[in-house]
Amino acid sequence: MTASFSRSNSPSAILLIHCPDNKGIIATVSEFIFKNNGNITYLDQHVDTHRNVFFMRIEWEMDDFIIPDDKIGEYFDTLIAKRYDMKWQLHFSQDIPKMAIFVSKMPHCLYDILSRWKSKELEVDIPLIISNHRDLESVANQFGIDFFHFEINPHNKLEQEQAQLQLLAEHGVEFIVLARYMQVLTDDFIAHYRNNIINIHHSFLPAFPGAKPYHSAFERGVKVIGATSHYVTADLDAGPIIAQDIIRVSHADSINDLIRKGRDLEKVILSRSIWHHLQRQILVFQNRTIVFT
Amino acid sequence: MTASFSRSNSPSAILLIHCPDNKGIIATVSEFIFKNNGNITYLDQHVDTHRNVFFMRIEWEMDDFIIPDDKIGEYFDTLIAKRYDMKWQLHFSQDIPKMAIFVSKMPHCLYDILSRWKSKELEVDIPLIISNHRDLESVANQFGIDFFHFEINPHNKLEQEQAQLQLLAEHGVEFIVLARYMQVLTDDFIAHYRNNIINIHHSFLPAFPGAKPYHSAFERGVKVIGATSHYVTADLDAGPIIAQDIIRVSHADSINDLIRKGRDLEKVILSRSIWHHLQRQILVFQNRTIVFT
Amino acid sequence: MTASFSRSNSPSAILLIHCPDNKGIIATVSEFIFKNNGNITYLDQHVDTHRNVFFMRIEWEMDDFIIPDDKIGEYFDTLIAKRYDMKWQLHFSQDIPKMAIFVSKMPHCLYDILSRWKSKELEVDIPLIISNHRDLESVANQFGIDFFHFEINPHNKLEQEQAQLQLLAEHGVEFIVLARYMQVLTDDFIAHYRNNIINIHHSFLPAFPGAKPYHSAFERGVKVIGATSHYVTADLDAGPIIAQDIIRVSHADSINDLIRKGRDLEKVILSRSIWHHLQRQILVFQNRTIVFT
Amino acid sequence: MTASFSRSNSPSAILLIHCPDNKGIIATVSEFIFKNNGNITYLDQHVDTHRNVFFMRIEWEMDDFIIPDDKIGEYFDTLIAKRYDMKWQLHFSQDIPKMAIFVSKMPHCLYDILSRWKSKELEVDIPLIISNHRDLESVANQFGIDFFHFEINPHNKLEQEQAQLQLLAEHGVEFIVLARYMQVLTDDFIAHYRNNIINIHHSFLPAFPGAKPYHSAFERGVKVIGATSHYVTADLDAGPIIAQDIIRVSHADSINDLIRKGRDLEKVILSRSIWHHLQRQILVFQNRTIVFT
Repeated sequence: MTASFSRSNSPSAILLIHCPDNKGIIATVSEFIFKNNGNITYLDQHVDTHRNVFFMRIEWEMDDFIIPDDKIGEYFDTLIAKRYDMKWQLHFSQDIPKMAIFVSKMPHCLYDILSRWKSKELEVDIPLIISNHRDLESVANQFGIDFFHFEINPHNKLEQEQAQLQLLAEHGVEFIVLARYMQVLTDDFIAHYRNNIINIHHSFLPAFPGAKPYHSAFERGVKVIGATSHYVTADLDAGPIIAQDIIRVSHADSINDLIRKGRDLEKVILSRSIWHHLQRQILVFQNRTIVFT
Repeated sequence: MTASFSRSNSPSAILLIHCPDNKGIIATVSEFIFKNNGNITYLDQHVDTHRNVFFMRIEWEMDDFIIPDDKIGEYFDTLIAKRYDMKWQLHFSQDIPKMAIFVSKMPHCLYDILSRWKSKELEVDIPLIISNHRDLESVANQFGIDFFHFEINPHNKLEQEQAQLQLLAEHGVEFIVLARYMQVLTDDFIAHYRNNIINIHHSFLPAFPGAKPYHSAFERGVKVIGATSHYVTADLDAGPIIAQDIIRVSHADSINDLIRKGRDLEKVILSRSIWHHLQRQILVFQNRTIVFT
Repeated sequence: MTASFSRSNSPSAILLIHCPDNKGIIATVSEFIFKNNGNITYLDQHVDTHRNVFFMRIEWEMDDFIIPDDKIGEYFDTLIAKRYDMKWQLHFSQDIPKMAIFVSKMPHCLYDILSRWKSKELEVDIPLIISNHRDLESVANQFGIDFFHFEINPHNKLEQEQAQLQLLAEHGVEFIVLARYMQVLTDDFIAHYRNNIINIHHSFLPAFPGAKPYHSAFERGVKVIGATSHYVTADLDAGPIIAQDIIRVSHADSINDLIRKGRDLEKVILSRSIWHHLQRQILVFQNRTIVFT
Repeated sequence: MTASFSRSNSPSAILLIHCPDNKGIIATVSEFIFKNNGNITYLDQHVDTHRNVFFMRIEWEMDDFIIPDDKIGEYFDTLIAKRYDMKWQLHFSQDIPKMAIFVSKMPHCLYDILSRWKSKELEVDIPLIISNHRDLESVANQFGIDFFHFEINPHNKLEQEQAQLQLLAEHGVEFIVLARYMQVLTDDFIAHYRNNIINIHHSFLPAFPGAKPYHSAFERGVKVIGATSHYVTADLDAGPIIAQDIIRVSHADSINDLIRKGRDLEKVILSRSIWHHLQRQILVFQNRTIVFT
């Protein structure tokens, strides 16, 4: 574990919380950690004043914490969460989650993720890569990751998705990254990985959802193009946005130039979003994200 | 005239051209200027390979040019333009055009334009400011510009627009800037100033056209907000885009924060677009702009 | 007071704290506010792990707070600050501070600040504008603000600064903005307004400090130019940085183009920094700023 | 060859020219191409008014050009270049140059270049990778490129560079990319590849040249960090700049965060610069670049 991973060299615990806004939540939660000998290394909170909801991310060093790891959840839920009607998640910085990558034919996002994984910028296990084409099998081989090909057509889609879900379950996959995977997932598939499927869309959403956004951007004559990462929901390209960025273009850029320039956005934005996800910095609430950075 | 205005200290002429793409256009046009003793200080061209259209902006110093100013158009048209089926505009760097500003209640774009005009960054005459409210009359007074109030309601809109058009004609207004003017112009009004009405819209179009884009952006949970300047056409917020820019936002930004941050984009983008327009850098073709910078 | 000012419609108090890092600080401070019936609307903290220093900004609504405004400081100092060896500042969102603007000849930053002040984006009192030239007196007059001219030469500088300090004291000025003021202040003057003089420098510091940065940037052939706001210290252009931004340039940009493009950065960055200062979002520690946004 | 490579599907020729500014250059050069049946697909020019130098990039389709490829240089030099005292380079879009990559221990730039090469975004031959360490040998193997290890120490540096130069010559290497190569090259080595060694430096030069720029940036408390690509000259980190970009940082970013965020800049900027170099878009003049995009 590097310093940049958990912002500390010690094993740490991370709590993500949301609940109706109330006085005293910060004092109560921070006192719970302090009294049990945890050293808080990060605390950020946000109040959605429109919806009257309180959000918090809090991280503390576990070295001298007196509650054992496997009891923290129970104690926190009993002593605090129930009182404030909290939804909460507990994570440990030393747990390395398992991630699957779905691809089709374009390699740029896949290469970007794998090179960050190989150099340990992304501390994650990647047990498998799944694709509806064989084009990127050699990239998987280059990095020594198992590659599974699922040919998808209108007739076998549901069946193939069930097979994929079983494979993912067998490998203990916790979340999925769609690295320019050119298939729409069914609602049922998505339901198995709610807020755990990260997609990259090659436009600044909500502009140009769906197919061929660079062509649409060219036609419209925009002066910036963008990329958007989001959690996948049942509505196409309408899930909670994690990150977005843009690059300037001009009349001199052909559609091929837009595609080429856009690739740099896509891969950087997607990998950055995986990083936020792995850092447990993201809370989703009513189709919007809170990203505590 | 400053050095930054025409990129040269001498009076210069500017030709904006588009025509079907053909061999020899650059050679022919540049030879026409060279043979008549013009020193070319700027030449940029663009070929739209999809539509097979050639675009060019060429600027040359007039000091020793042997064709008189008022004959250049005739000669160029006869000798060259007709041969290549060109559309062309001729401008002189020393002509100072007349611009009207339309405003409603928000002062930030108006202040920005007027302070640039006052400090001669924008070399333009501003004979009048028109508004459907009286809120900004004091700003016009501050800068010594005539202010005309036209109350607009559903019943008097056409009539008021006719009165505005007459006023604009009396003042010799060549182009109009909508500096957060909160009225939709009729097609008839727009037709009088085709490609000569610059609007600023407070989103990165084509996302969030129409009313309250910051509210929509907040609801959608975007991570960037933008502003877009464009020439006004009959289709609302769908005219040819001149310039766009964005600023990063997060979950922590309220709608008021988006509005505040967006103002900085709006004013800078709008003023930059006026600058491009005054430099005669913009060509419009099929709802897209070529901006030769 | 608008919602965007204090992120809440109620009067609020703001505490800025730094102290040696220790367990329990957040719990102790947040409990102090909670127990006395304050509703925390903002809390952000930062730990400088290199220097082992803890920083916090905390804001709470005063409506039902049981400690009177003029006693909060005493209570906090006695009960908490001394125990943790804290440095702290207490501010109230409803206090409107007094700001002086120093200018020379260039109007763009001055116009930008005054138009934001006039439209109440910047909630501040501006009792006076001071200049070493008369060029911008008319701008001060336009906005109805007193203008004081202090001619500065090598012989009278100390004397003139003393007169300026007296004038500032008479007007109760709390902080100063150098809006492209082209004079170096003496250490003595600076000492009177420590961390309370905001300057805008027209480069991305630490590149191109001192005079004529755009000329140096042009000579070096950089592809971006920048602007940097910072608190003024005895070392020229070396004080703690508040905000920085850049804009892309190319070989096609003349020095005049750099100057023109840079103005947009300068004014936006400077005004944004004033906003952070007014929101009490900035802590200075060892020549670096913590800006809690 | 893709459309995005040469902006045309036909084989094309590219002329890069600079010479003392004079009337008639554009007309003369464009007529030379036109008269010999070349279709100009790109022309951009720049006049450095300070130094009175004219620069031009012109590209034309070779399909019907009546001068054979191997005679264009001779004809152009005789008929035009000598008359105007021009320096010129002639390139053909179908020539695929040979590029060597020098690396040390960090893989991010290497992965980025190789994945773009593998997916044919960068149309270049890469006969070899050279390194002073063995850390990245496995990456070279992954992509099937020969890897040569040259251990460098103060005593063997000159000798090792001679061996490298011989190896480069044997492989016909035209230009070199330093992809975070942590060795300073000798003047002699650089002289062999003048304006043909591209380096990436991890700061926005001229700020933070030399070693450990992220540490210096952290100490200085900057709010943006950057990366700069440049051609290597005898003066360390002072060569002509090709491209620069920045990313925003805050007090919350540790040095490790700066390093992590900076990597994304470094690799994208370096690869973009290789792309410009391969497109023959770059002219160097007096330590500045003209990049015709």
